[in-house]
Order: sequence, then C-alpha cells, then structure tokens
Amino acid sequence: MTALPIRGPVRIIGIDPGLRRTGWGVIEAEGNRLIYIACGSVEPPDDLPLSGRLLAIHEGLASVLSSHQPMEAAVEQTFVNKDGVATLKLGQARGVAMLAPAMFGISVAEYAPNQVKKTVVGAGHADKQQIAMMLKILLPKAEPPSADAADALAIAITHAHHRQSTALRLKVVGI
Amino acid sequence: MTALPIRGPVRIIGIDPGLRRTGWGVIEAEGNRLIYIACGSVEPPDDLPLSGRLLAIHEGLASVLSSHQPMEAAVEQTFVNKDGVATLKLGQARGVAMLAPAMFGISVAEYAPNQVKKTVVGAGHADKQQIAMMLKILLPKAEPPSADAADALAIAITHAHHRQSTALRLKVVGI
Repeated sequence: MTALPIRGPVRIIGIDPGLRRTGWGVIEAEGNRLIYIACGSVEPPDDLPLSGRLLAIHEGLASVLSSHQPMEAAVEQTFVNKDGVATLKLGQARGVAMLAPAMFGISVAEYAPNQVKKTVVGAGHADKQQIAMMLKILLPKAEPPSADAADALAIAITHAHHRQSTALRLKVVGI
Repeated sequence: MTALPIRGPVRIIGIDPGLRRTGWGVIEAEGNRLIYIACGSVEPPDDLPLSGRLLAIHEGLASVLSSHQPMEAAVEQTFVNKDGVATLKLGQARGVAMLAPAMFGISVAEYAPNQVKKTVVGAGHADKQQIAMMLKILLPKAEPPSADAADALAIAITHAHHRQSTALRLKVVGI
C-alpha cells in the first residue's frame, strides 16, 4: 500500500462488540502512518438486566466518542454460527455498538474477520498471538488491556488501510 | 385475572423490533381495564447502511417515547432459529429497540411469543388473525397499520396482565 494524498490525519475508532465486554480502540492515520491514541473496553455489570447492559455499552461508547472525537468508525462483521442464542446476544450488543457512532454522525464501516487478520498480519487465518505481535509493531505505544481492545485496534487499522484504497480508487476513476 | 389495587393508570409501550419495520404500541392499564393510546411502526429506508437503519429505529422510538411518555416497556423474546443471518439482523434491531426505553429510564420486560399469544388469545399457538380479532375486542379503538404494530400492542397487553400478577404475588408475600 502506498502513501496517499489524504489531507491531514483521520481519527478512527474500531469497535469489537460483545454483551460481556465491548472493546474499542482509537488511532490516527495519516497516509500510511498510524498513531495510537487510546483503547479500552466497556464491561457492563453481569447482574444488570439486558436493557441495562445495553445501556451501559451505549453510555461507555458515547463517553469514548465524546472524549476522543473520532471521524470514522469500523466494526467487525459478525461470524454467524449455529448457536442462535449466542448470535442473538452478539447481535444485540452489535446493534447498540453501531448505533453509538451513528448518533455522533460518524459513518460505520464493516470488515470481515479474515479481512482484519489479512490486513494486520498478512494472512486470513492468523491467530490472536500473531495479531498481538503485529499490534506491538504497528502501534508500539498501545497496551490493550483485553483481547477485545486489541481486536478493536486491529479493526481500526483495517479501516485505515481500506479507506485509503477506497480513496485511491475514487481518485483514479475521477470521482 | 382479578382487579388489583394499583394506584392510577400505568402507561405501557410494547415494541416488536425488526430491521425493516419496528412496531410499537402504547396502552394504559388501570386494574384490568385497558385503554388504547397510540400505535405505529418505524420503517428505516432500505437504502441506508446498517448503522443508518439502526439510527432511524432509535430516532423513531425516541420520538414515540418522548411524545407518549410510557412508564414501562415490554418486548417479545426472540424466537431463535437456525438462520444465523436473520437472527443477527433481528438481534441488532432488538438491541437498539431495548436501548431506547432504557435511555429514557424505563424498565424493559421480556415475554416469550407463546406467553403473548396465551395472554391475548388464551392459547399459546394462536395465529395472527386470532390475535387481530382479540385486539379488536380488547382495544376497540386501535387500528394498527401493520402486523408489527398489532404485535407491539399484544406485547403491551401481555405486560399489563403480567405486571399485575407480579404485583399481586409481591403483595401476597408481603414485599
């Protein structure tokens, strides 16, 4: 991927939604330079009813969006398996996680899990350790407190790369 | 079900979430008397990206909650089937639909589909026509514009009945 004529840095939030723990990571991208800003996770108390847990996720993300003012957002496309109950739970958290940036007027891109792995590690079937190792190289200042926060940073990096290719394509075809 | 010593009417919103159409229905319950207030559905434009559709559902429900000021909310428990993609879509809409009342400080009860049918029609396997017929009797002034709005009213009625039994049980055991 080559450096691109994008004016100024763009601040990106990646979100890895989950009902127990929703990871988030904020980076800045300028051309192909990446700068770590912050990361963390929102963990709703287990003893809350479902609507209370969704509210905790919303409030946590709204607070992050308000503090870090990202300009674009990205989430991972959900891997749908045969466990309908788990899919439903994840869907509920994902709906709330995608709503928060939309409420801040921020577009939300979606990337397939293997696209994230391929962008960060170079292989679509990378494991968590390989992703963690590449994060250390790409964002040396990041110390993600959880796997979800690390995943969120990986999603933000994926968006940083793919938005550039999209921008380049648009430039080439003259839009 | 017998009349109960609940002070004043309680205003209830029932919500039937869906990404294409989210139904809502508001009723008032005083003892076992039900009064129809309003119903409708939120239909996000098809051409919006997912985050935009979730935002449209949120804004539609927030506007309804703000106009009709319900005190309690209820949604149907989702029937989980083997179609993971459909379950995920519904989950996303459901997360956003449960968040809206939570953001207004309203508790959100959940009822299984057969509990709703049993409450409204008297049989757990009632069809849509039987529910529509019973709605005409229970809420004669309601003219739901869609099946989702009718379902939302049925969910609100279910909550009106079950919150009473819960209140009665609490009274009996002296809590």
